[in-house]
Amino acid sequence: MAPDTVPGRVLVVGTGLIGTSVALALRARGVSVWLNDADRSSAALAEGLGAGTAVTDLRDAKGIADVAVLAMPPEAVGEMLRASQDAAVADVYTDVASVKSLPASRARELGCDLASYVPGHPMAGRERHGPAAGRADLFLGRTWAVCPLPETSGDAVAAVTALARACGANVVTADTATHDQWVALVSHAPHVVSSAMAARLAADGVTADALRLAGGGLRDVTRVAAGDPVLWTQILSANAAPVAEILKAVAADLADAAETPADMTGLLVRGRDGVGRIPGKRGDSPREFAVVQVVMADRPGELARLFGVAGDADVNVEDVRIEHSPGHPTGVAEISVRPERASALLDALTADGWTARR
Amino acid sequence: MAPDTVPGRVLVVGTGLIGTSVALALRARGVSVWLNDADRSSAALAEGLGAGTAVTDLRDAKGIADVAVLAMPPEAVGEMLRASQDAAVADVYTDVASVKSLPASRARELGCDLASYVPGHPMAGRERHGPAAGRADLFLGRTWAVCPLPETSGDAVAAVTALARACGANVVTADTATHDQWVALVSHAPHVVSSAMAARLAADGVTADALRLAGGGLRDVTRVAAGDPVLWTQILSANAAPVAEILKAVAADLADAAETPADMTGLLVRGRDGVGRIPGKRGDSPREFAVVQVVMADRPGELARLFGVAGDADVNVEDVRIEHSPGHPTGVAEISVRPERASALLDALTADGWTARR
Repeated sequence: MAPDTVPGRVLVVGTGLIGTSVALALRARGVSVWLNDADRSSAALAEGLGAGTAVTDLRDAKGIADVAVLAMPPEAVGEMLRASQDAAVADVYTDVASVKSLPASRARELGCDLASYVPGHPMAGRERHGPAAGRADLFLGRTWAVCPLPETSGDAVAAVTALARACGANVVTADTATHDQWVALVSHAPHVVSSAMAARLAADGVTADALRLAGGGLRDVTRVAAGDPVLWTQILSANAAPVAEILKAVAADLADAAETPADMTGLLVRGRDGVGRIPGKRGDSPREFAVVQVVMADRPGELARLFGVAGDADVNVEDVRIEHSPGHPTGVAEISVRPERASALLDALTADGWTARR
Repeated sequence: MAPDTVPGRVLVVGTGLIGTSVALALRARGVSVWLNDADRSSAALAEGLGAGTAVTDLRDAKGIADVAVLAMPPEAVGEMLRASQDAAVADVYTDVASVKSLPASRARELGCDLASYVPGHPMAGRERHGPAAGRADLFLGRTWAVCPLPETSGDAVAAVTALARACGANVVTADTATHDQWVALVSHAPHVVSSAMAARLAADGVTADALRLAGGGLRDVTRVAAGDPVLWTQILSANAAPVAEILKAVAADLADAAETPADMTGLLVRGRDGVGRIPGKRGDSPREFAVVQVVMADRPGELARLFGVAGDADVNVEDVRIEHSPGHPTGVAEISVRPERASALLDALTADGWTARR
């Protein structure tokens, strides 16, 4: 398969939210998708949603796919990689688990073929779970981490990168240990920090009247703490050392602030600087990006097709807003990109037959 | 003045965001409003916005108002209370500063009349500052803490309570020390915790690629850390002891979590329980509230008038959504209230001439 070519045949193993969303996104790009899940009713539901065709037994699926996407929790990836490689279902294998060192180590222990294995992690999710929550646009404009091992072949990396882009995502490459430090910083430690603040609200002596003073700030800070404690304990345990390092530093800063409250401007300045480094999407100054406007018909798959063009042109989508008048059959997508990439996107869209302007 | 009667004449000293918004809200209820600010151009702008009539010198304003609202930072309240009581501008005085023990102590030190002083704090704000940012609906459905001192008269408390309700707010009463513990918990400590997490993003070695993995969770947790470090240092210094107590507890929980990461389910469960205690407004299950629908004309002050009726009927507004078709002159306000108060609201609205239904 040539580099940057979207795989034509993909097997998705595990039809939960992420697996089904990958399948739906690829179907929208015309990819042939096969579905498998230990829970046959889950795969059947995903099939009913148009996500692909269910296959009951992987042992009957030799050579069925160019790429197999293993969409399951981190601790289950190693065994499934071993089983699917034993059945030779695909040329290239990837997973979508939220930590990367653990599944990679397990794959190594189990003697899996590492040349064809590309650990991956799309940064997307929803509150809801299961195939019914799947959405073709779940990865649009999101970051998808691709984390090759030293043994992983360049062709395998290219195939998984093309797959991620076909789903509308922007690819970032890192080794597995670096990835795990990154997600500890941007996801896992913030979850624990949010929980520790929220836990104060459940302390003895906190009255309902006190909580009536709560505003949007408290809600923002504590929102993620509403997540499932059992699921999050699994995630945090699978990435314990990088998370602990950050929590220690945060705890030390907070203890210092408690000690000398009049002297915490330095911490507040560092905090403001830190927030300012978070890129794109929300809360950003729109001046930083150029906006490309694209006329869109109101039909399913149109946005996915649009983001496919952007991905093929190697343009990162920083934000997207859809303007749509009720009852009017066409709308306008306003796509924010880095100014130096706006022309490339405009050219690619025009070449593909879209009506677009800056 | 009879209890629960909205003051007919109000003087607002300080025409920033909060002062101007109080003035606009009261003007919408037909209250006569006078405006004063050390910066005359600020008072003039507020006057130009229809917030009331500017008075240049408080010493010429003897007996001008039933209630004077001092809308300025905590450290300035005491002196202004002394000056305005010396000028005898009003029968009753209140302030809107975000901490209450500091201005109350200062007022006591300065020998102010405490019988006519009702410390207060509306829980509302915006990103923007100054009179131009003022909005008549800033306090709609928000909580307004009223914090009488032991010396404060019942009549003074009744007048300020009626004023807060006339602005559309729901009143909670607490002594000043309790108020300060409450805001430490729901606002000040969360700000520092958010900053401490955000500060990690500005640490050495954190790359732009790492931050490209940031999702909505990190943005939520760190959003308030974007606030002005100098302003927040003032706020935190004015409420140092209650904030320090909470920060110490959060730091201890985070240090424990770093020590035994596999054992943090307990913290996550407490955090989830804490989030679940935050009432109303956002993220709540809508089942908990009854929804009253009210037809609204598209003209200024309509919402303020609506909330005035709810306040007069002693109905707390838990949430409000406006449904409005573009180009259509009337909309529908969907008002969430506790189920047992829905009939009272419906009766009050109908008696006041509104078209309303459950």
